Amino acid sequence: MSDSSADFSRFHCPTPLATHETIQLAHGGGGRLMRQLINEVFLPAFRREGDTEGLRQPPHDSAEIRLGDGTRMAFTTDAFVVSPLFFPGGDIGKLAVFGTVNDLAMSGAKPLWLSASFIIEEGLPMEILSQIVRSMREAADEASVRIIAGDTKVVDRNKGDGLYISTTGLGWIPEDVHISPAHIRPGDKVILSGDIGRHGIAIMSVREGLQFDNALPSDCAPLHRIVRAMVKHNARAVHCLRDLTRGGLATALNELAQDAHVGFVIDESRITVMPPVASACEMLGLDPLYVANEGRFVAIVSPEAADDLLEVMRGQGEAVGLQIIGEVRAQPAGVVELRTAYGSSRILDWLSGEQMPRIC
Amino acid sequence: MSDSSADFSRFHCPTPLATHETIQLAHGGGGRLMRQLINEVFLPAFRREGDTEGLRQPPHDSAEIRLGDGTRMAFTTDAFVVSPLFFPGGDIGKLAVFGTVNDLAMSGAKPLWLSASFIIEEGLPMEILSQIVRSMREAADEASVRIIAGDTKVVDRNKGDGLYISTTGLGWIPEDVHISPAHIRPGDKVILSGDIGRHGIAIMSVREGLQFDNALPSDCAPLHRIVRAMVKHNARAVHCLRDLTRGGLATALNELAQDAHVGFVIDESRITVMPPVASACEMLGLDPLYVANEGRFVAIVSPEAADDLLEVMRGQGEAVGLQIIGEVRAQPAGVVELRTAYGSSRILDWLSGEQMPRIC
Repeated sequence: MSDSSADFSRFHCPTPLATHETIQLAHGGGGRLMRQLINEVFLPAFRREGDTEGLRQPPHDSAEIRLGDGTRMAFTTDAFVVSPLFFPGGDIGKLAVFGTVNDLAMSGAKPLWLSASFIIEEGLPMEILSQIVRSMREAADEASVRIIAGDTKVVDRNKGDGLYISTTGLGWIPEDVHISPAHIRPGDKVILSGDIGRHGIAIMSVREGLQFDNALPSDCAPLHRIVRAMVKHNARAVHCLRDLTRGGLATALNELAQDAHVGFVIDESRITVMPPVASACEMLGLDPLYVANEGRFVAIVSPEAADDLLEVMRGQGEAVGLQIIGEVRAQPAGVVELRTAYGSSRILDWLSGEQMPRIC
Repeated sequence: MSDSSADFSRFHCPTPLATHETIQLAHGGGGRLMRQLINEVFLPAFRREGDTEGLRQPPHDSAEIRLGDGTRMAFTTDAFVVSPLFFPGGDIGKLAVFGTVNDLAMSGAKPLWLSASFIIEEGLPMEILSQIVRSMREAADEASVRIIAGDTKVVDRNKGDGLYISTTGLGWIPEDVHISPAHIRPGDKVILSGDIGRHGIAIMSVREGLQFDNALPSDCAPLHRIVRAMVKHNARAVHCLRDLTRGGLATALNELAQDAHVGFVIDESRITVMPPVASACEMLGLDPLYVANEGRFVAIVSPEAADDLLEVMRGQGEAVGLQIIGEVRAQPAGVVELRTAYGSSRILDWLSGEQMPRIC
């Protein structure tokens, strides 16, 4: 019981922003304002001396705990406030289990145990709650984790929205696994694990009452098996992993670029957006690169191992959109450049404001 | 990484109750309806074969995780929805840290790491959030735990109530510590750690806009140091611990009686209720035995060690109301009998319905 790295330490904000005096929806959106909130409110309160010094312990999806015998555990928490509670391909319960499982997986950890706390609005039909709880158990079984601790609170009508769930996960990090933005190197390849934008569009389609032709379900899925196959094949070559939740692919790459002090060049033609998702995005005025996913991630890997790792990932059943989409370069640090199919290029910036509230 | 005992397994409901088709406030109140909810909805979904067989792994405030090398960890989660956010003697942040620290302490664990997830209502003043987050850091420092993982979500106006916080704690259980309802024996003494009812009355005083003469602050405090002193003195004599949160002393004793299949005889004259709390209870029509505390617990200990343990507890600074209040008997199992100062006796039953919603 000796050491731990804090995942609050991930937060730096490069440029000062106008300060809001009250919380805005965009403070929860995964973009620039959320980083500012964490940088200015949470980080100063929770960090300790040494937490954020240089690249020794850069930001990550979960905190690392080192036990007395050297065993390393990953520890992570997430609140789920998705609206509506049910959507094509999933529900808040499945999301709450897989979301936390995936944060553990992004550390290369084997997910083991989960806790779940429920904040229920008075008046929620018992049958809805039962259905969501059963869905959590199914998701836990699918991900081979156990939900072993829980709590229930009830709030008055109009002080909630049916149900909010917070899950916290604990997993075991194998000895040879060292996955962190600190290990990203210029020349590394960027692998994208599948087509993007499906979760966000699945939510928006229900929320806005839209009927899309050939609508696709959310990509909501556990990622630990594909990660396990990768690290089993070549743990040293897997430098960093990041799932593409709030803020989508563009936000994940910007976070990594900032935290690892590197740049990315991404080839737009190698990013897959399925036609129904692309047309929904067009209709809603959304950029699929910023739309949330719940079963997709990027892997930053050694260039010489990239093709092999791609084959290993294909062997796990993912196929559509699984591609090497770009690479890491030393300069300009913090910048994500997107090369378009037409030979031009543009900077993929942070999301400003809120694109889609309460997506997870 | 092999074994764990689930704290969902604590829930049995002795008598069938009318089933509600929607969630009521009382489902979160810590009384009979909450047990029913967990018994009928959560337990069937989350338990696995063997979890609830007999007394081998009876219910407790946190789940026990057994690592590969035999190390035992305690793992627990709590949602905090207290209204108002600030009250005499504390705020939701302090409560969220100490509440989870105390659940770990009730397993005899040394609290080590916490995660915190925040569900913030759009429009919450930034200064309020900052103040609460600073209060969490102070509480974490006071309890020698680190908040190492976090998450922030924002919900629309009127879909929350300022701020909800879920904390999850992880602690280390020393080798010689075995604290569980399974270890309660007839003849054991019941020690109450202090005067009762202050937290509930502190909340009610603000909520109802009541001004009580000589009002007392909440008893909100971390309990791990007093527990540590007890187990250091005589770990084998400390059979079970339970903090007196939602539902108060009466509920805690009923839970233990049911889960350990024993009875309790409690001497009412040995229970301290401070005069301002007693008069507030009278005015509000509340029974202090059912009012929530956030820094009080009962210890069920070997009769021969009870006086020594009482001295050890006194040495930790608690004094007012720290008393042996009764003892365990074999029969009638599941029943808590209160002997009054007048020589009569009454059964302390489960709380039916909701006495005080959103007290923690």
